[in-house]
Amino acid sequence: MTARKPTMADVARRAGVSLKTVSRVVNQEPHVRASLQQRVRAAISALGYRRNEAAARLARGATMLTLGLVMENISNEFYARLAAAVEAAAAEHEALVVFGSYEESPDKERMLIESMAARGVDSLIVVPSAADHGWLAEHASLRMVFVDRVPRGLAAADVVVLDDERGGRAATEHLLARGHRRVALISDDDGLSSVHDRAAGYRAALAAAGLPADERLVVHGVFDPCRVAEEVSRLLDLADPPTAFFAANNRAAIGILRALRERPERPAYVGFDDFALADVFSPGVTVVRYDVPLLARTAVDLLLRPPEDTSRLVKVPVELVPRGSGELPPP
Amino acid sequence: MTARKPTMADVARRAGVSLKTVSRVVNQEPHVRASLQQRVRAAISALGYRRNEAAARLARGATMLTLGLVMENISNEFYARLAAAVEAAAAEHEALVVFGSYEESPDKERMLIESMAARGVDSLIVVPSAADHGWLAEHASLRMVFVDRVPRGLAAADVVVLDDERGGRAATEHLLARGHRRVALISDDDGLSSVHDRAAGYRAALAAAGLPADERLVVHGVFDPCRVAEEVSRLLDLADPPTAFFAANNRAAIGILRALRERPERPAYVGFDDFALADVFSPGVTVVRYDVPLLARTAVDLLLRPPEDTSRLVKVPVELVPRGSGELPPP
Repeated sequence: MTARKPTMADVARRAGVSLKTVSRVVNQEPHVRASLQQRVRAAISALGYRRNEAAARLARGATMLTLGLVMENISNEFYARLAAAVEAAAAEHEALVVFGSYEESPDKERMLIESMAARGVDSLIVVPSAADHGWLAEHASLRMVFVDRVPRGLAAADVVVLDDERGGRAATEHLLARGHRRVALISDDDGLSSVHDRAAGYRAALAAAGLPADERLVVHGVFDPCRVAEEVSRLLDLADPPTAFFAANNRAAIGILRALRERPERPAYVGFDDFALADVFSPGVTVVRYDVPLLARTAVDLLLRPPEDTSRLVKVPVELVPRGSGELPPP
Repeated sequence: MTARKPTMADVARRAGVSLKTVSRVVNQEPHVRASLQQRVRAAISALGYRRNEAAARLARGATMLTLGLVMENISNEFYARLAAAVEAAAAEHEALVVFGSYEESPDKERMLIESMAARGVDSLIVVPSAADHGWLAEHASLRMVFVDRVPRGLAAADVVVLDDERGGRAATEHLLARGHRRVALISDDDGLSSVHDRAAGYRAALAAAGLPADERLVVHGVFDPCRVAEEVSRLLDLADPPTAFFAANNRAAIGILRALRERPERPAYVGFDDFALADVFSPGVTVVRYDVPLLARTAVDLLLRPPEDTSRLVKVPVELVPRGSGELPPP
């Protein structure tokens, strides 16, 4: 999973020559000393280096390949990790990344995409907002891959998402297996495919256990951890409160942590999305985790491969990581 | 602090006209209906809108003003918050932001800056690496402001930093005031001005209290929380261990949290940099905090103002926020 494709820089390092020399050999330019050619060829073969489009552009003296990354909010840890992983994946192709975030504004999302296109960024990775993306049909020359959410209103699109439905189902089943019968869902805008699919998994697990879905325990549309904390407190104050929570993203899990600081109850909970300090709390936060570098690398690879006639939808697997909070029994 | 300057988009919304119409009125272009002119003027006056350079560019049909932001590592919360704040500050000037991060590689820092310049980004905010930046003299046409660290090797540069020395001193004095006499410093690369100044504040506080600086308690050059945790454990195993720590950045504070999960000791500690979950732990993490949006806004304002003959160095104030971890007494 972590094996990195060798780059021209790796070849240069191993051969003990400059990047320029590697580039000249790879591009079969004249006037490279035979001994240097041999060293570079030996390094290429030892490392299994394969010339790629980005390297070829670079060798031709073109400006460096630059990928654009458009996402919701860089200050959310999920996006920060995604951005770092996209940069690392792009670096394997010797490409740079520029990124911008649109908060909750579809207008700003459109401005960002159009501004990047105007600046010569021809390949884009977009985490789409919940708005209709039909306007993108005007930008047929832009190569785009969507990540984390399926865009609305596009007949054809390459998309890399998480296996959200399975993750929502696994989280809920995990809580039900500990004997919980009242499991609440704390979630984001249901118009986003990721949110919708995680909630579908939650409902499927309840149905499979023969439990009715109690809509009073389902909270959609809260993004901010402080608002989540209020909703969690409100639910815990019900006459028949939930004994467990499925937090459908990292902000919801953090909101539960905040709420429980002020409350005597110790409900079980499972979060979707890992976060840096999840394992430092007591109990540790049980989460549905996935490989962010794999998500990023899959998107970058799709973006840099030649386009195909049919759209591609890739699902990245998820796994449940028990750390304590999801294993607490009902009171 | 949170009051946002009105933008052309606000004017357009209030007047119920398109952005294009506002732009034409603002630029006194002909052929705008008198009734529309009047509505736009009324909205401008009601909102107190003032035309700015970015809006003027936009009105002239130029591509949108785009700021470049070059940082060390977007997956670190400090940088993610800085990026979000720079975007918000740029939005007040109707400008977009593209960003890139260079990990620990000065070569990649240079590639990013040169690639952004080649793509027509003419204004850059840079958190500089510890390397010499003399090569930037070749790029005299680039408008740049440095943030968080003073770049090396540049005769003239506009810089916005935190009051690092004062922060380091305040953190250390806070621990000394609780009776601690053996205070360790956990820090990053001392070649960075921010790190150097925070350590200088630590040493100044010890000296003012008449305490010798014990170099065995000073750890420089650790970035990764897991490496920090190892160093903290090593120090706590000394025959004469520290009873308190000054963590000179968020990663060092998180490393201490990790180490203490496995240890019986309860040393006091103060971190530099606030982080999202600092107040959710028990005890809460006492930190040196500062206003990230102010840091970003100051940099963006310097960048968009006309250049001056003299370099400007602005220090953003810091404050100590007691939350529990910094108020623990010595054993």
